[in-house]
Amino acid sequence: MRDIQPLVAPRSIAVIGASTNATKSGGVLFSNLRDGGFAGPLYPINPRAPEVQGVKAYPDLKSVPEPVDLVYIVLPAEYMEAAIGQCIEAKARAACIITAGFAEAGPAGKVLQDKIRDAAKAAGLLLAGPNTIGMVNADCGMMGSFVNFPHWEKGGISLFTQTGIFTGALMRQVMDSPTQRLPISKSIDVGNKIDVDEVDFLDFVVDDPQTKVIGFYIESIRNLPAFAEKARALRGRKPIVMLKPGRTGPGKIASDCHTGSPPSDDAAVEKALQGTGILRVEDEEDFVNTLRALAMLPAAKGRRVGIATTSGALGVIATDLVTDYGLELATFASATLEKMATVFPDWLAPANPYDFWIGIDVRGAREAHETGLSAVFADPNVDLVLCTLLAPPNADFPEMGELLKKLRREHDKPVALVIYGSAAARWTEEVEGADLPVFATVRAGARALAMVANAAG
Amino acid sequence: MRDIQPLVAPRSIAVIGASTNATKSGGVLFSNLRDGGFAGPLYPINPRAPEVQGVKAYPDLKSVPEPVDLVYIVLPAEYMEAAIGQCIEAKARAACIITAGFAEAGPAGKVLQDKIRDAAKAAGLLLAGPNTIGMVNADCGMMGSFVNFPHWEKGGISLFTQTGIFTGALMRQVMDSPTQRLPISKSIDVGNKIDVDEVDFLDFVVDDPQTKVIGFYIESIRNLPAFAEKARALRGRKPIVMLKPGRTGPGKIASDCHTGSPPSDDAAVEKALQGTGILRVEDEEDFVNTLRALAMLPAAKGRRVGIATTSGALGVIATDLVTDYGLELATFASATLEKMATVFPDWLAPANPYDFWIGIDVRGAREAHETGLSAVFADPNVDLVLCTLLAPPNADFPEMGELLKKLRREHDKPVALVIYGSAAARWTEEVEGADLPVFATVRAGARALAMVANAAG
Repeated sequence: MRDIQPLVAPRSIAVIGASTNATKSGGVLFSNLRDGGFAGPLYPINPRAPEVQGVKAYPDLKSVPEPVDLVYIVLPAEYMEAAIGQCIEAKARAACIITAGFAEAGPAGKVLQDKIRDAAKAAGLLLAGPNTIGMVNADCGMMGSFVNFPHWEKGGISLFTQTGIFTGALMRQVMDSPTQRLPISKSIDVGNKIDVDEVDFLDFVVDDPQTKVIGFYIESIRNLPAFAEKARALRGRKPIVMLKPGRTGPGKIASDCHTGSPPSDDAAVEKALQGTGILRVEDEEDFVNTLRALAMLPAAKGRRVGIATTSGALGVIATDLVTDYGLELATFASATLEKMATVFPDWLAPANPYDFWIGIDVRGAREAHETGLSAVFADPNVDLVLCTLLAPPNADFPEMGELLKKLRREHDKPVALVIYGSAAARWTEEVEGADLPVFATVRAGARALAMVANAAG
Repeated sequence: MRDIQPLVAPRSIAVIGASTNATKSGGVLFSNLRDGGFAGPLYPINPRAPEVQGVKAYPDLKSVPEPVDLVYIVLPAEYMEAAIGQCIEAKARAACIITAGFAEAGPAGKVLQDKIRDAAKAAGLLLAGPNTIGMVNADCGMMGSFVNFPHWEKGGISLFTQTGIFTGALMRQVMDSPTQRLPISKSIDVGNKIDVDEVDFLDFVVDDPQTKVIGFYIESIRNLPAFAEKARALRGRKPIVMLKPGRTGPGKIASDCHTGSPPSDDAAVEKALQGTGILRVEDEEDFVNTLRALAMLPAAKGRRVGIATTSGALGVIATDLVTDYGLELATFASATLEKMATVFPDWLAPANPYDFWIGIDVRGAREAHETGLSAVFADPNVDLVLCTLLAPPNADFPEMGELLKKLRREHDKPVALVIYGSAAARWTEEVEGADLPVFATVRAGARALAMVANAAG
């Protein structure tokens, strides 16, 4: 086991290729680092400029007054051997090679990549990349990517990925939303993954106090037995979510073409990961939703779902989907049913799913929602709460956001919200920051709760 | 077989309960009808007002100068028998009972509902409702609902539904979006479904020139053999999409509670519908996306998918998902591969999925997309095109929307777009109106193409 802290949580950073031109990659990466509020010293390396973007520059790494933890390198591939040589000579502890054009760019690139890997290995220099969008650690203010993330939401998710462009686009997508952003602690894209791998990452995050949930987008697992063993040791402590495409025969071939290195065989992966508790997701939506649910919600105490709905149809659809995903419908306690009946006409008996739309006519939107939602949240037989709500004008009332936040605070249960209708955007805005995940579809909500239940074993 | 044209495509309409107060249900429904541009005469019935919202009113139905095709009734349940009596006496041909509070409201409501049904049946009066949000037929300008749909997109989908509130909320959701709205011809919500049913509806839409795609949200099928027979006769002419929840055991129980009448047994439904070509969908997202894809796209000539992508990761995920849904990866023709290689460096060979991100570096965003997308669209071995595109600033160019529209026009093939990144909204806006469906996730895009292929047999 080796300590990758200098790479993912460095105390000092240098940037070889830090450009005075803030539109070039090396300039963008440097300005993102400078503006990101990095806690330690930041040293631009540039032989032709006394300062870079207002920060004193050094002509080379050995001129820097201390050995740095991490060196970002944004130089054309032909200068890479020399740059790695500088890192080794100056006793840097880690390097992140942003530059592309190595193994993924053909045989010559592969030769160069292997040389660099071997030199770094001999010197004990940790490597991320090449061919990466970089690394972000929001806890120490390291925005080390040439992609700019202006709306980073600091939180409990730590990501390890093996695909640059997709990571960048996905992160931007989830960051640019005005609500329901993914709360992320660290996002480490290792690109071609020539050194630091998923096992190193697990070793680090197991004891990282900021990491609550671990996410992997990987196409290969270098040391499957070691990875499975580490994951098993983490079970019950921190959930691990894994998107490893190439599940199908054609998908495996496509994965092979993508990474330029043989992807792990899926059957072998599935077998090795049995009993590890790793949550395998199938696509990018599933990945993001599962991570968000795990980051926002407490652990599930069981698999019994209470469905609170204002649409009979959505309640039936939700019942099918939670059943598909291996959850059970809770049997409401008799006290719950009595409470539920207070917003119903005499002739109607509540059940699960509890559709209290009629209560809006009987008691008004506010009382129907207060009584209806509270009853489901409070029921001792309910482990998970799925709310599929319609929000047309006559179901709306000003205190809806407050009500949802209060219920979330008072009941330590996983909950998923799905909202259709004109007030959906306002309700979603009102619960922002309250750890209440909102999903776009009933399927996504049901699936997220199932994954939270699966995470609890 | 009976003709339901007077109900769903009437030449004249009366509204019993048309209110001078435009905030009451009867007032809202009347103003929606009046402002919707209905082609024929519209008669408000109101015994206490000489005119309603600027339109000459009549004290009762028999005072109207002609027998009307369709009468909407928005009156409390206790006046319903008398209102139906008026319809029969005045020789109206159809009535739509908006009012709730019948079988779904307990035993007394069931008794009243049966009385009304029997009276209408004896007189040959067609009925929709009770307990419905109403009926829209955009082709004759009938916006007959108390839900207001200001952004109705007229098009080839005809819907038959059995759930009021959900239909209203779902329709508003898909109508309020600035892009990618569902193009709908007719939306007939029959509520408690005491008379006109799914078989009548199939009889009508089979020869309706405006109906290209048929959608059902139903929890029960009254005459399963007749329905299956009609559907089989339609096969290959107009695709039928069906969302019938209650697939699972718990879902069936929930469906039973929702409609107040025994839902159809799912195994029996599945068996009866074999060979009908009905496309069964599983949830509300699947329903909307399948309908949209079928309405916008030409028929598929086969099941071979070409994946054009600017993200290797999304390409691999897409490959898994199209495989899951029973599609095949196309083998690109050699001329296609040659064309694809022109935006690649020498050492790289194109394959399917065709990831041309590197072409953006080699040839620029415009040429990479022009060459890359054209090659996939034009390939003779490609029946279906799935584009999973990243849209960060460096992949963007002003003519992207034009390019996509041109390819859609020039190649008569089903295509699905999935776009992540900062330019996603603009690209989506630019293809608006060009019959290019855009999906939120790779799964949704892959699923929609599979459903289009399934529709073709």
